[in-house]
Amino acid sequence: MNDMETIARKYFDKSVTDRERAIFEGGIALGATYHQFVGTPIAKKEEVLRSLEMAVSNVMALQPYKKSVKLRIDRSVLKGEKGNPYDYETLKGHHMDLEVVSEYGKSRVTLRMKYIPDLKYTLMYVERIESISEHDNSR
Amino acid sequence: MNDMETIARKYFDKSVTDRERAIFEGGIALGATYHQFVGTPIAKKEEVLRSLEMAVSNVMALQPYKKSVKLRIDRSVLKGEKGNPYDYETLKGHHMDLEVVSEYGKSRVTLRMKYIPDLKYTLMYVERIESISEHDNSR
Amino acid sequence: MNDMETIARKYFDKSVTDRERAIFEGGIALGATYHQFVGTPIAKKEEVLRSLEMAVSNVMALQPYKKSVKLRIDRSVLKGEKGNPYDYETLKGHHMDLEVVSEYGKSRVTLRMKYIPDLKYTLMYVERIESISEHDNSR
Amino acid sequence: MNDMETIARKYFDKSVTDRERAIFEGGIALGATYHQFVGTPIAKKEEVLRSLEMAVSNVMALQPYKKSVKLRIDRSVLKGEKGNPYDYETLKGHHMDLEVVSEYGKSRVTLRMKYIPDLKYTLMYVERIESISEHDNSR
Repeated sequence: MNDMETIARKYFDKSVTDRERAIFEGGIALGATYHQFVGTPIAKKEEVLRSLEMAVSNVMALQPYKKSVKLRIDRSVLKGEKGNPYDYETLKGHHMDLEVVSEYGKSRVTLRMKYIPDLKYTLMYVERIESISEHDNSR
Repeated sequence: MNDMETIARKYFDKSVTDRERAIFEGGIALGATYHQFVGTPIAKKEEVLRSLEMAVSNVMALQPYKKSVKLRIDRSVLKGEKGNPYDYETLKGHHMDLEVVSEYGKSRVTLRMKYIPDLKYTLMYVERIESISEHDNSR
Repeated sequence: MNDMETIARKYFDKSVTDRERAIFEGGIALGATYHQFVGTPIAKKEEVLRSLEMAVSNVMALQPYKKSVKLRIDRSVLKGEKGNPYDYETLKGHHMDLEVVSEYGKSRVTLRMKYIPDLKYTLMYVERIESISEHDNSR
Repeated sequence: MNDMETIARKYFDKSVTDRERAIFEGGIALGATYHQFVGTPIAKKEEVLRSLEMAVSNVMALQPYKKSVKLRIDRSVLKGEKGNPYDYETLKGHHMDLEVVSEYGKSRVTLRMKYIPDLKYTLMYVERIESISEHDNSR
């Protein structure tokens, strides 16, 4: 463990496990990504959408203990090409399919944000929890 | 458990405990609050700061399983009254002391975001985890 | 004119009039308010909505040459009280009726952001331009 | 003029000139870009910074009457490669050099947002105003 993490851990409840810490870090990433980028102008243009997906994935993976972040914007609910100056949309929860993988110590957690029609809600959830051997855990 | 939660739980890994779910929901709230409000104009005027603290606390507590959200903006690092049109600041991580209490099932978790001088970093952390009796858990 | 404004003006095209500057400052406020606060959780609870309206109005008025900022969130399009943990909304353009009054030199401009059903678009526009006598122009 | 613009114009003060409208649209873009993206995690990694610059430029140019948007993040004020999990930064005003070109009718306006050391402020300003012949004005 690096020195900074030694300092950081003093602030955490002592009973927090690796698995809980990975879940926590993943939850932060989901909340952060939604609230940072919601409202961004978007349109059904591949070049625009791909550059936004890539940027969001790249910048959010910089946060601590994020192994990977992948945003996919759902093209199927976007309207077609911009016909007049007012014809574009803004990024909303139901456009986003976001997958975050966080790792801490011996735990790897896959978290997800996706629109769930039955709930009429963009749900953030913990999709999968795995144990990893310590030496797999680069970063 | 309400019907919506029954649907939502289908998406979660089956092994997620109440305690882990409460930690997850708290992590979302910390990440969400930081990234929603960072950049907001602020100045050392009590009326302005108090209205922002109150609004942030009120709106972020609307998210699922948040028992309470309390934002305190650190006055000590803010400059004095606005003397010219360009003399104000924008909300940054190191201005914020945020406490979130989340509850799920039998677990209550207190989470915090605060600037840690030793880390030169606004740390998000799990401060305390408690067991509650089911009947305390309103909402 | 204060010293800071003397410096700032060096960066502006020399032909910019007071009226144009006031329009510019108002445009900034409209774009800033939308993109800062869109995505904020909201619900049809007077206390919550009023605190958010007040905070947004207070903080955005801190920016240069803003005389007043007034946000009104449209209650009529919000659903009723929160019945389950997933039953709340997030602030979107069509919820907002925002009025900004900016002043620069001899010009006062009223600007507005409002959802226009005929456009299916939350339009930002310059509603009214007035001349003011210099001595009215406090701040 | 397209049909949507005919509707939109009814909301504008009748005395607004093409030049003023272009200034207004540019002001919106500057305020919007700052408040949408401030707080985004960043680090001194070319791939990350370039993808963010490209995405911001692409999405913000979707808004009405924006001819081009170019964001340049100042590498010189960023610290070096990430050495530990807490060693990254968040996008702030003084990192950004943003150029927006807006066009409306016969006017093309270049607007800028840049940190001005003498003001200790990230200034938004109208850099240049030009007349264009109507037939140059695509979009």
